[in-house]
Order: sequence, then structure tokens, then C-alpha cells
Amino acid sequence: MRTLCTDLTTTTPGTEVTLEGWVHRRRELARVTFLVLRDRSGLAQVVLPAGTDVPPEETVVRVTGTATANAQAPGGVEVTGAVVEPLTEPAATPPVELWRPTLDASLPTLLDHAPVLWRHPAQRARWELAAASLRGFRATLDGLGFTEIATPKFVESATESGANVFAVDYFGRPAYLAQSPQFYKQQLVGVFERVYEVGPVFRAEPHDTVRHLAEYRSLDVELGFIRDHRDVLAVLREVLAGMVAAVASGGDAVARTGARLPVVPAEIPVVHFAEALELVGAPADEPDLAPEHERALGAWALAEHGSDFLAVEGYPMAKRPFYTHPWTGGFEARSARTSTTEATNSFDLLFRGLELVTGGQRLHRASAYDEALRARGEDPADYASYLQAFRHGMPPHGGFAIGLERWVGRLVEATNVREVTLFPRDLHRLSP
Amino acid sequence: MRTLCTDLTTTTPGTEVTLEGWVHRRRELARVTFLVLRDRSGLAQVVLPAGTDVPPEETVVRVTGTATANAQAPGGVEVTGAVVEPLTEPAATPPVELWRPTLDASLPTLLDHAPVLWRHPAQRARWELAAASLRGFRATLDGLGFTEIATPKFVESATESGANVFAVDYFGRPAYLAQSPQFYKQQLVGVFERVYEVGPVFRAEPHDTVRHLAEYRSLDVELGFIRDHRDVLAVLREVLAGMVAAVASGGDAVARTGARLPVVPAEIPVVHFAEALELVGAPADEPDLAPEHERALGAWALAEHGSDFLAVEGYPMAKRPFYTHPWTGGFEARSARTSTTEATNSFDLLFRGLELVTGGQRLHRASAYDEALRARGEDPADYASYLQAFRHGMPPHGGFAIGLERWVGRLVEATNVREVTLFPRDLHRLSP
Repeated sequence: MRTLCTDLTTTTPGTEVTLEGWVHRRRELARVTFLVLRDRSGLAQVVLPAGTDVPPEETVVRVTGTATANAQAPGGVEVTGAVVEPLTEPAATPPVELWRPTLDASLPTLLDHAPVLWRHPAQRARWELAAASLRGFRATLDGLGFTEIATPKFVESATESGANVFAVDYFGRPAYLAQSPQFYKQQLVGVFERVYEVGPVFRAEPHDTVRHLAEYRSLDVELGFIRDHRDVLAVLREVLAGMVAAVASGGDAVARTGARLPVVPAEIPVVHFAEALELVGAPADEPDLAPEHERALGAWALAEHGSDFLAVEGYPMAKRPFYTHPWTGGFEARSARTSTTEATNSFDLLFRGLELVTGGQRLHRASAYDEALRARGEDPADYASYLQAFRHGMPPHGGFAIGLERWVGRLVEATNVREVTLFPRDLHRLSP
Repeated sequence: MRTLCTDLTTTTPGTEVTLEGWVHRRRELARVTFLVLRDRSGLAQVVLPAGTDVPPEETVVRVTGTATANAQAPGGVEVTGAVVEPLTEPAATPPVELWRPTLDASLPTLLDHAPVLWRHPAQRARWELAAASLRGFRATLDGLGFTEIATPKFVESATESGANVFAVDYFGRPAYLAQSPQFYKQQLVGVFERVYEVGPVFRAEPHDTVRHLAEYRSLDVELGFIRDHRDVLAVLREVLAGMVAAVASGGDAVARTGARLPVVPAEIPVVHFAEALELVGAPADEPDLAPEHERALGAWALAEHGSDFLAVEGYPMAKRPFYTHPWTGGFEARSARTSTTEATNSFDLLFRGLELVTGGQRLHRASAYDEALRARGEDPADYASYLQAFRHGMPPHGGFAIGLERWVGRLVEATNVREVTLFPRDLHRLSP
């Protein structure tokens, strides 16, 4: 029966125990040799006679000995009278010392040696935040009557956005990798009303930036029977609160990363796009927010509302996809500010000054799709498969997508999204 | 405040209610018109004066009226004195009548009109079984200390199996779509010990069969510190039990599909591959089981052990990947039967006579990998990225992968795996 490292703390002193894990560190002192063992739960100290031959760091071993109280040991209990049995060959020396409290590795080193460097307790904890976030995401939505879906990653045409798609040789004909489950999650609102999917999305991003990846995990949500995008935002608020709660209750990973958890306000503050432009001193005819605008708005939201989150609604149609619902709110009526371009029922959510979520209400009438496509010079017939659902009755609906890596990146305030991605893929990197 | 159809049952008669959903059926009788409304929860009956103009089936409507007890109505409560307000344009007539108790559609019709035909309550319930299975899968593994992972779908080389991979133009150089997360889940055992992933896997299957897809959902598990593949099988048993329990507790979806839920035995019966060949009367030098052998073994397991599940262990190396651990059990010792080829610590799990799961123990020593690759005429240097984890210490480990669509297919005894896949992808199909 194996005892996990952290369970040693609650083991009655004098008990014979067997632990298994990695040699995290060996320290040979004049009168004693220490072996720090690492397993999935944490670390434990093993005391051996001086001169004991301990296998090199990272070797996998089984340790059998006696649980012994020692106020000096981590957790107050260590293993004494131990026998150490290697379960593998002696491990090669890691590219960076994993036993040091801080992982001191440049980004290229971190990425080239990902399989080994993710073992560092502080680095591993970053992914543990991601895993806890996924748990919180699903639990919240399951509780709200959502159904998990699985949509195809092979798609027939590059119609959704046209740009930055990956082409695949699909049994001798061209296919594309889905940039998002957008079309499918909408169609499935027609079946399940409320759906979500966690899956890879593929973007042939020609940009080499700190926040773009060629493949990332998208947390997609779509729901029917809404009034407008504010109902979507309300669900997003619940989801974020659920994610933060799951992260907070996920053991000591938060402490190991030094992450600063946000408080999700009961209502996320919202500004209209036109107001946002004015707040950051941008020209009123800008069609989108630049990264520096997002940062300034993040600072403003913190100062003005004490919130790490800010929703910007009413983005102009110019930068939104054709299925975006036109603006139905009263913003123009209650403000002297006017947007020079047509506003939409869409929003972005900024988290600490970075765009984390894009969402909004979609068109739901078949005729509105026909019109929107024709207005762009496109033929609705090219979208026949997608439009089936609308011709056969679709409710008012909307949704959003959260980028998992960006979320974790902002939680731990990483400078590059690659630092929190297990095996990032970008313009240059396909390995490990 | 919206009332869901099934919540009507518990609404106090006389209460004013608002329901929203699809016109599932309209029936005009001489003295009354019935509208059956469908939402994500189920159906409700709405009573209207004869001659009321009800929008066509599948139109999305809001119904406001009075909850009224009626023993004849489904659930004992119907809506009377109702006003029906369309939320969309009148819906086009569905390709198949969705209000009939049984969905009477050929497979091509079902697939061509998937966005609409999945709305049929019995068809939708099939996916609800899938969603519940995913919930049970994750809950079981979370409870056993597993960490969810997300591994890249773009891979640099087609090394894992070499055959049936999809090639992608990756920023002007070749990349491939991952056929499984195998290499990555192993490397991450080095980090988290116990990992799982639910995600798409891509197989350029040139076969047009009832059980193969070009893209399917793989439920992948990998764990360290095992003795042999029997420890992996024990975790699989828990996972299957958790999936069945989640399906059983997932509302009336089981009833709507007519699925026959299996009982997962406390210990899944196991036969050695050599014994399995003998049981089905196959030659002792067969390297694999044919579909008809699997069916015969399924029947045998049911007759002999009363079990819908049967594990076949000790598959010959010839048909297993290079990372498979050689046989360490005592089968040859306790039986007169001998396999003519080298056996391995691997298994397949048959569910009702169909291969549902492949699993086993993997090699864990770096030297064993070097040897296994050289024995196949391959250069370990080509696997340097993958082998990093092993050179730096990996525990004895193993895992398995469950095909989600096959699982649901067998639960509902579908004749073709496409019937239970939301939007299947195969040799011929890329749409919808």
C-alpha cells in the first residue's frame, strides 16, 4: 500500500510506510544523507545514513521506512530507517535543477524541455490551475442545464472567417481545421438550447506575439432564449465565478504559482465601445481596441470599479462576423456619444487589461442571414448546410468563447501565453 | 420568468406561466387545437380554441397561459387560455416528421439533415447518453487523483504509427494531426502521475465500415506506479462503472433511447489472447482478433460470466505499438496453451462483442525504448523529443483509450457508429 508524500503528515509516527516517486533532491551531509522524494501530491523527506548511495535526481524510486515525527521536516513527519529501491535506470541530469524553489529557465529552455521542466512544483501548479478551471467551467454549466457537445474539427470550407485557416489533405480533397465550433454550437442550440464544448481550435496565426498560438483550448458556450447579449454576459459571469471558486479550492496550486485570484463582481461593469474609445482617448472612428487600449481600460476598470474584469459592448459591425446581431440597446439614446459605425449586440471581456472572451448575440432569423450574407457579396447557398438550422426554427441566442491559456496566463501574470501551455504550437514550434 | 415544459408538472394549477420552445406538433380537432411545445426539458401540451392559427412545426414560440390540471395531458398539467407569440419566422417543414415517436429516417437522411434531425427527442437522447458518459468519466478520474491535460493535435512527425495520418500545411512545412495523445499523455505521467484527456483524434481511415470514423472522441487515461496492465484494467473498471452510473442518473434519456445499460462486474473477466483464439476456434498463430471473433467472445463472456464486458490480455507484439511492455504474467506457466508469438502486457476490452478500449502497460526504461526502436530498424534519435521524459526518469505506467462513439453505439445497440455521432466525418463525408 503506497503512501503519498503529503499523506505522511497524517501518518501515525512509528508506522511502516512505502512511498514511490522521483528523487527530487539528494543532500549528503557529514553525518546524514537526505533524500527529498516528489510525487503527485508534493514532497517528503527521507533520512538515510551518511554515505548511502542515492540515485541521481529524477530517478524513480520506491522508499520503504518508518514514519517519524520531526518538527524540522516538511509537514512534521519524515521517513527514517529507509530502504531506497530504484524502479528505473539512473536518470539523466535535468537541463535545469528542478529542486530549486524557483524554476530558473529562459522561455526557449522551458519550451524545448517541457516534458521535464513541467515537473517543477511551481510550474506544474500552473497547469493545475488550468485543470481546476476546466472543472469549474463544466460544473457551473452542468448546473445551469447545459449539454456538453463535440463538434467536428474537419470542416468543408473556410467560410467562417476565411483567413488564417489550416488546410488538410482530406482523402485527396481539401478540408480545413475548424477555427472555432461557432457554426456547430449554434446549430446545436436548436437541439439542446444550452451547449458547451472544450476543445482545440486552430488558427494559422502569422503573428509571433506573446498572446497568440496556432492551437489553443477554447471554452465555448452558446445558449438560446435570450433577450440580448446581456443575458450571455450574465452566464459568463457565473462561469467565471465558478472557475475562480474551483481554482481556489484546488489545493495548494495557487500558493505554488503565486497567482492572485480575482474577485468576480456580482455584476461585471460594462462600457459601450464608443465610451471605451473616449475613455482611452482614441479617435471615435476606430473599429477595434488596440492592446494598449485594452490595458488602459483594464486600469480604468480597476480604479473606477475595483474590478479585474470589464465588458466592452456594442462593437462596430466592421470587425465582427456576419452572424453578429445588430445593436438593440438604448446606448445611443442615453448618451451624447455616438459610434460612427453600426454597433452590435456583441462584447469583449477584458481580464486585467487583456481580451479574454469574445461573445454576443447572433442573428437567429433565416432571412437575416440571407440578408447579411448578400450584403457582404456572399451567396447564402454556400452556407446551406449551416443555414438549415435557421430555416427550421432557431431561438434568439448568443454565446461566448474563453481562451484557456490566456485565462491562466492572466491568473499567474505570465508575460507569454506559452509559459502556461503544456506543449505550445506557433509559427515556429511543432515540438516537443 | 420562463417555465420549462417538464416543470409544468409541478406548477400549481391556476398559475400564469410563460413557456418558450419549438412547435413540436399542432393538431387541429373540431372543437379544439392542440399545440405540443418542445424545449430542452421535454414536451408540454397547450390547448387553444379551435381554428387558432398555430405556426408550423419547428417554429420557435413563446406561450403564455394558465397551468391547468388535466389527467389526460402528459404530466397531468397543460396550458390553457394561451397566447402564442412566434419568436422567429415560420419554420420550413422538416425533412422528416419530428413529432412521431420514432425517427423514421434512413442513415443518409439522418446525416444530411443532422442539425434538424438531432432535435427528435429519441435521437437527442442518444447524445445525452454521451454527455452523461463524459461527466461520469471525468468525475471518476477526478476522484482518483487524475489531472486533466490538453495535448497538441499538431505533431511534427507521423512516427507513432506511420499509417493513416492526415497531413497539414503548417506555415509552409508539413505537420500531421495526432492520431492519439499517446506520446504526450505518457510524458505527462512524468509530471502528474495520473492524467486524462477527452479530445478529438484523427485517423485517415481508408475503410468505409460501420465502426470507423476519420475523427472521433477519445477518452484517454494514463497512470504511473502500476505493477502491470491489470492495475490499468482495474482503473478502467472504475471508469466504466462511473460512466454507467452517470448515464443511469441522467434523467429519462435512457428511456427515450431504449438503451440497455450494462452491469459492470466487480472484476471484469479476463482471458489470455491465446485462450481467446482457442475459444473461437481460430488458428493459434493469428496475430489479432477479427470482428467475428470479437462477437463470438462477447457471446461467450455473456454465457460464461454473465458479463457484457470481456478483457483479452497478452496480445502478440506483432500487432501492438513499439512502446508496449512485454508480457510479465504467468499465463504460459499456468496453461498448456502457448502463443506462437511474443505476448505483451496489453489488453483490449470488448463490450458486447465490439472492441471498445485498447490499453496496457508501456515500456518505461529509456534503454528499453532504444532497444525496441532499433529492433524495428528505427533510430531512437528520431524520437528524441518523446524519449526525453524517459531519460529523465519515468515510473512503470500504462493506460487506455475509450472510443466515445463506439461506447454510445453499443449502449443503444446502433448498427452504425455514425448514428450516435453529432456530425460524423469519414472517407466521404465532410458536411454538415
